[in-house]
Amino acid sequence: MTDSVFKPSGVVTLLTDFGLSDPYVGVMKGVMLSLAPKLELIDLTHGVPAQAVAVGAWHLSQSWSRFPKGTVHVVVVDPGVGSDRRILLAERDGHIFLGPDNGVLDPSLDGDAVVRSLDIERFALPGASRTFHGRDVFSPAAAALASGMAPSEAGELISSWERFSLPEAEVDEAGVIHTEALYADSFGNLITTVEAALLGEGEWTVELCGESMPLVGTYAEVEIGALLALVGSSGTVEVSQRDGDAAASLGAGAGASVVIRPSASD
Amino acid sequence: MTDSVFKPSGVVTLLTDFGLSDPYVGVMKGVMLSLAPKLELIDLTHGVPAQAVAVGAWHLSQSWSRFPKGTVHVVVVDPGVGSDRRILLAERDGHIFLGPDNGVLDPSLDGDAVVRSLDIERFALPGASRTFHGRDVFSPAAAALASGMAPSEAGELISSWERFSLPEAEVDEAGVIHTEALYADSFGNLITTVEAALLGEGEWTVELCGESMPLVGTYAEVEIGALLALVGSSGTVEVSQRDGDAAASLGAGAGASVVIRPSASD
Amino acid sequence: MTDSVFKPSGVVTLLTDFGLSDPYVGVMKGVMLSLAPKLELIDLTHGVPAQAVAVGAWHLSQSWSRFPKGTVHVVVVDPGVGSDRRILLAERDGHIFLGPDNGVLDPSLDGDAVVRSLDIERFALPGASRTFHGRDVFSPAAAALASGMAPSEAGELISSWERFSLPEAEVDEAGVIHTEALYADSFGNLITTVEAALLGEGEWTVELCGESMPLVGTYAEVEIGALLALVGSSGTVEVSQRDGDAAASLGAGAGASVVIRPSASD
Repeated sequence: MTDSVFKPSGVVTLLTDFGLSDPYVGVMKGVMLSLAPKLELIDLTHGVPAQAVAVGAWHLSQSWSRFPKGTVHVVVVDPGVGSDRRILLAERDGHIFLGPDNGVLDPSLDGDAVVRSLDIERFALPGASRTFHGRDVFSPAAAALASGMAPSEAGELISSWERFSLPEAEVDEAGVIHTEALYADSFGNLITTVEAALLGEGEWTVELCGESMPLVGTYAEVEIGALLALVGSSGTVEVSQRDGDAAASLGAGAGASVVIRPSASD
Repeated sequence: MTDSVFKPSGVVTLLTDFGLSDPYVGVMKGVMLSLAPKLELIDLTHGVPAQAVAVGAWHLSQSWSRFPKGTVHVVVVDPGVGSDRRILLAERDGHIFLGPDNGVLDPSLDGDAVVRSLDIERFALPGASRTFHGRDVFSPAAAALASGMAPSEAGELISSWERFSLPEAEVDEAGVIHTEALYADSFGNLITTVEAALLGEGEWTVELCGESMPLVGTYAEVEIGALLALVGSSGTVEVSQRDGDAAASLGAGAGASVVIRPSASD
Repeated sequence: MTDSVFKPSGVVTLLTDFGLSDPYVGVMKGVMLSLAPKLELIDLTHGVPAQAVAVGAWHLSQSWSRFPKGTVHVVVVDPGVGSDRRILLAERDGHIFLGPDNGVLDPSLDGDAVVRSLDIERFALPGASRTFHGRDVFSPAAAALASGMAPSEAGELISSWERFSLPEAEVDEAGVIHTEALYADSFGNLITTVEAALLGEGEWTVELCGESMPLVGTYAEVEIGALLALVGSSGTVEVSQRDGDAAASLGAGAGASVVIRPSASD
């Protein structure tokens, strides 16, 4: 399936590790508006930890489908900028994705995705820098695609690209689920990729950093200050603290081992 | 008065304690744009301290009237999410307010406000989470109301809701005003709710954390580094430090006792 | 040349030191949208360190030309607010700049710039505060200018204003360049104003805080964790650390002495 079904909505999302302390994101928007004045530019987040491809990949995979068809998603978590890494232009379900070929797009793509290698030369602004492709390559390409340029004009089809696996859960013979924390959000919730469907019926206990806590339905089921686990807004298990910051209280962060165990029944 | 005079302007403001490090706010915008592509989405702030209903209530009360009539204000400072707390839909002076029934809207409402309990079931997205009503309930409701749905279709009128009083000032027999700091802004200004009208003519001295400082008209009236008090941009007394951070210098924050005393005259 | 060639695009950029923790920026947008509903409001950044005129001046000078002609750039880094400092209204190359007369606009202006003193009384909102001209003066003025008011109606021409020089480089007899770090961005890159053109051909070594590092073309030329210097996205020399934070590693910040020396050849 290589005929594009992309009909631009004019919405462009931005997901970077640039933070908001500097004008880097603002300047990207200036470049886009100079080329396509009517775009609606939405910040997905710019708080990805510097060069944390896994966190960027997770955020994108959890977010893109909430936007209208016809959205262009620009992802600049790009430790390889300045090298000869490719930039991918992918289409899926009426959305377009632009990101470096380092795996950050991969968890958001499926078998029907149509993936191209962006023609960087075609889009690079005159005097393009080697360190800020967000401004000099991604922004002009996004503006063109969000204005109706056909993806087939913007790059050649490719059949392989950098794959990326988010942390997976292993279920052992006793039915115990072993995984790790993907990251801590700004509330201190430690997010895993374990989906509710893996749990089925029954009660579960979650272990992290030597602490054990119940998997509950909502915060209000535990005391203020208590640790708990629940199925969070992304539909996956996370470890939280009621009215507190679980990551800080536990001294835990990305990569911490998480064990999800069927609760003992008497 | 229950006939709605709300004529949507297409502007939606967002006030949350979500921060900007995660894509929570971005995803709310995606949901709204999917339902109502032409909205103008404005961040009021997402820097309310986690679950600080008082700060959210203050920010909203100081900000909403600066926006055009026809604005929908979405407030998600919602420690009770997942419980059976109601969501309020209030109208006042041509503005609509959506927020949890925990008092966060209350200081922005007056006797003419028309308040409803939002029909949560009607707006909840399929598979709505118990932890992220910002995405799954508030956003679809805001998009509908900002697109012209009549409030009377969106919920039943109610006559009582959670009240909330911002810290008040007490004036003792000697004319001394006693209050407390509501919060410290990001410049370290300690904000109170004492309005300029309470001061009238005359000179005042402000006491906080054992320090005493003059109430002046502008920063330039004191030396660089000196503590001062003045009537801030919200029209209330605040304690500041010229070219400095008063909250850090004084070790003071929300709840700190503030005394405003007529200056001794000889 | 005093005939205005400004044709508003409807884009307004905002550059302040207000941060995003408080609703100050959101309220400015409310004021603007109340007066001019169709504006496109773009945050350049609000992360300028408090009252850091030099950093604001640098960000503006590096950013404004990336936006479409017809943009109004609002700059509120304004330690003198409340005093009788003027507000400048400048035009250059089809862009308008509004900022306090403290030098923050100066590096963005050239000999053809047309500069006026804004008629503050004309634009001040009723009951304007002495501490928040961003809301009470800059926002209404920006909305008017972005809606087509002629600059000649908004203020009187002036011929002198506060000048501001960004840190300059001195080249000594041995061809060694001496300068200082202007600021550290949020990645910890220490930015200088030394342009690539000053370097010409040849190899260079950069010294900062007793450390010596090569000037390279891209991060990938050094080991992970190594310090390096390169020509950054603004076209000037910056000191970085591959996959690290140079400012934190070196304990260096704004004002740190930087020496750029031709590499010894054997």
